[in-house]
Amino acid sequence: MTVHSYVLSQQEFVDRHSLTYPFEERGLQFGDGVYEVIRVYNGDYYLKKEHVDRLFRSAEAVKIKLPFTKEELDANLRQLLSQNNVTDDAKVYLQATRGSATRDHAFPTVEANFYAYVEDLPRPEDKLRNGVSAILRPDERWQNCYIKSLNLLPNVLAKQEAKEHGAYEAILHRDEKVTECSSSNIYIVKKGTVYTHPETNQILHGCVRGRIKQLACQDNIPFVEAAFSVAQLMDADEVFVTSSTSEVMPIVHIEDQRIGDGKPGPITCKLQHAYAADAKIADYSMLQS
Amino acid sequence: MTVHSYVLSQQEFVDRHSLTYPFEERGLQFGDGVYEVIRVYNGDYYLKKEHVDRLFRSAEAVKIKLPFTKEELDANLRQLLSQNNVTDDAKVYLQATRGSATRDHAFPTVEANFYAYVEDLPRPEDKLRNGVSAILRPDERWQNCYIKSLNLLPNVLAKQEAKEHGAYEAILHRDEKVTECSSSNIYIVKKGTVYTHPETNQILHGCVRGRIKQLACQDNIPFVEAAFSVAQLMDADEVFVTSSTSEVMPIVHIEDQRIGDGKPGPITCKLQHAYAADAKIADYSMLQS
Repeated sequence: MTVHSYVLSQQEFVDRHSLTYPFEERGLQFGDGVYEVIRVYNGDYYLKKEHVDRLFRSAEAVKIKLPFTKEELDANLRQLLSQNNVTDDAKVYLQATRGSATRDHAFPTVEANFYAYVEDLPRPEDKLRNGVSAILRPDERWQNCYIKSLNLLPNVLAKQEAKEHGAYEAILHRDEKVTECSSSNIYIVKKGTVYTHPETNQILHGCVRGRIKQLACQDNIPFVEAAFSVAQLMDADEVFVTSSTSEVMPIVHIEDQRIGDGKPGPITCKLQHAYAADAKIADYSMLQS
Repeated sequence: MTVHSYVLSQQEFVDRHSLTYPFEERGLQFGDGVYEVIRVYNGDYYLKKEHVDRLFRSAEAVKIKLPFTKEELDANLRQLLSQNNVTDDAKVYLQATRGSATRDHAFPTVEANFYAYVEDLPRPEDKLRNGVSAILRPDERWQNCYIKSLNLLPNVLAKQEAKEHGAYEAILHRDEKVTECSSSNIYIVKKGTVYTHPETNQILHGCVRGRIKQLACQDNIPFVEAAFSVAQLMDADEVFVTSSTSEVMPIVHIEDQRIGDGKPGPITCKLQHAYAADAKIADYSMLQS
């Protein structure tokens, strides 16, 4: 996928080829920044407010002062889509770093650097229909996973391992408790109840996770925020993950073991259906009409 | 301090103003890289082999293939100093990232990006003579701190807190065990014996740390690699930290409490003296002749 021509740099729109950074950049030397990925369906944002709010929360948590207000960012994000004539499914990547300055761990007195760009992103239809597989790995990340920071090396290494094993995701666990995946939140279903890790410092507080909680409630699906073990995961009736790019993705195999009957389960399908209705997009679940 | 004019980019020398990176760079978007800082005294490297070996170990640990051999890097590092006419005290910063590619957690199939530059760095004479202060903070880093990676956000946040408290360093502890500092290894002295955290995954295996161990041995100073507690730290006779930029730095105050008599202790001074002799530099310890 290619980045659309116009990218947002600070509060200006520039050609994507002209946006470069010096080698002394806090992002490049310390991973000193925060980011977001927002889903775009049919040329319009989904859960934009939630993502913008979280970007500001992440920035505050690491003491980066964003050089714009939420309202200014909102207006610029709208223009990013219109200027690039985005009418299809896409994702917008946003990133803020502490700025460009002579390397020193302590904060420099420079303005934060910000950019955002759009990339086309077709929905993963087949995977949503049939489910995907996952591997299990220890969660080796830092203690503040609720911050959506650029310190993503453990996530990168886990995702690469998944890819090398022909799997879609790496499910992470601290000791025996399942936390989340390399780039998505994870849920199990047991006897009709959905379980997922509570919103502590140990997981990202996913925007899709928040919406799925609301949708489960609306559909009278019991939704329990409590950590579950690796053993409970492997013994679940259904497993699924959520994220802005994965939507509600059934996990039907973990480490060569089949989950349930190896097909997306009924609760997962119900939530896929509810998600599609909420985002006003086609329903690829087994419930589709 | 300013970066010297010629910087090493891959295996070429380029003007520092011409070295920029696209916004889709693995370092910038994932902190997906490793680095080193090598000390230069009087225009010559100190512990160069140790740093180059560690760079290759770090790269291997995160599966980054460096686009050169150790011998080629060694030759380029020599030329970096000569081309910039470095004859004084300085530091060389080296960094390798997984490359520039469309954002995706899994590894791209591109060549790693590498750069290195020199910056003047006078020795911290007064601090070495009088000692410095430190604060105590929880160690919130990931589980693989032996890898010298660009995922430095927790280190950045801890160092900034130290600075805001007028302190030189932040001493990190996991539960009650002291691990290391935000950018240096830490040691205590009790009844003539030096204690420091063993070389596990929880600390960086410092190049200066390795040399200090040898120097202590040569000077018949008992050197024990065992984790110590926060209580043992606060009750120590002496505390010091080491790194390529801090050398052997006495810590004389921690969180408003004086360590020993609030002056660099005799074992710390002996090791400063041994370090100065080993690096062939002026001795600023209280043992100086």
